[in-house]
Amino acid sequence: MQISHIEHVGIAVTSLEEAIPFYENLLGFKCFAVEEVADQHVKTAFFKVGQTKLELLEATSPDSAIAKFIEKNGGRGGIQHIAFAVEDGVANALAEVQEKGGRVVDQAPRKGAEGLNIAFLHPKTTCGTLVELCEDPNK
Amino acid sequence: MQISHIEHVGIAVTSLEEAIPFYENLLGFKCFAVEEVADQHVKTAFFKVGQTKLELLEATSPDSAIAKFIEKNGGRGGIQHIAFAVEDGVANALAEVQEKGGRVVDQAPRKGAEGLNIAFLHPKTTCGTLVELCEDPNK
Repeated sequence: MQISHIEHVGIAVTSLEEAIPFYENLLGFKCFAVEEVADQHVKTAFFKVGQTKLELLEATSPDSAIAKFIEKNGGRGGIQHIAFAVEDGVANALAEVQEKGGRVVDQAPRKGAEGLNIAFLHPKTTCGTLVELCEDPNK
Repeated sequence: MQISHIEHVGIAVTSLEEAIPFYENLLGFKCFAVEEVADQHVKTAFFKVGQTKLELLEATSPDSAIAKFIEKNGGRGGIQHIAFAVEDGVANALAEVQEKGGRVVDQAPRKGAEGLNIAFLHPKTTCGTLVELCEDPNK
């Protein structure tokens, strides 16, 4: 697979309302979008830092992966995943990972925030780190 | 402070020997440096992804922050910190954070891997995320 850059870093927060001012007032970034992703039970806020985005994630339901991450993390936020931009397609990348003996969470790409096609690899394959692959279908 | 890009993402691993092949063989990156940072009790491996580096971190002592992170994380690796490249100096950035009421771990810049000047902000200020600021003194 061809990875060009880190598309975004996903950061779990207990409250967007509390977290956004840290990124804006202390670090000097500008939040350019807030979006709810209903099927992942999260509300997201985006910032651009160089060629990468920061995606802050607040759970909207206890069923959300973000709620579970925060619970396991002693009630605190933290960096939940890293997403790589794949140039030759997420479907191809998933096939390649599995051919090489790796495990995936998503067998096929699905829709994520910002209309991207996304898929997660299995943490067993990635030494514990939650790794997302994504592509912009409009590119 | 002026942040230009994400300098690196720090990923805790239980074993570099196990983790490096995932990043090289499955994701297609190339490890360009392995370095021991004695005062942080870690061994690091670096990969370049676009304008950002991945810094894999293996603890060399139970006193290491990486060993403690992995212990709290149920014995698994994961994304431990995010480091932003500051263009107008880490010392200035630390002063600015404190003037605005934020807390820092390091009162002054210290030497990190690759000869960078680095400092960490306090997770209480950053909504739980471990945030590093860094500058290249040779630029």
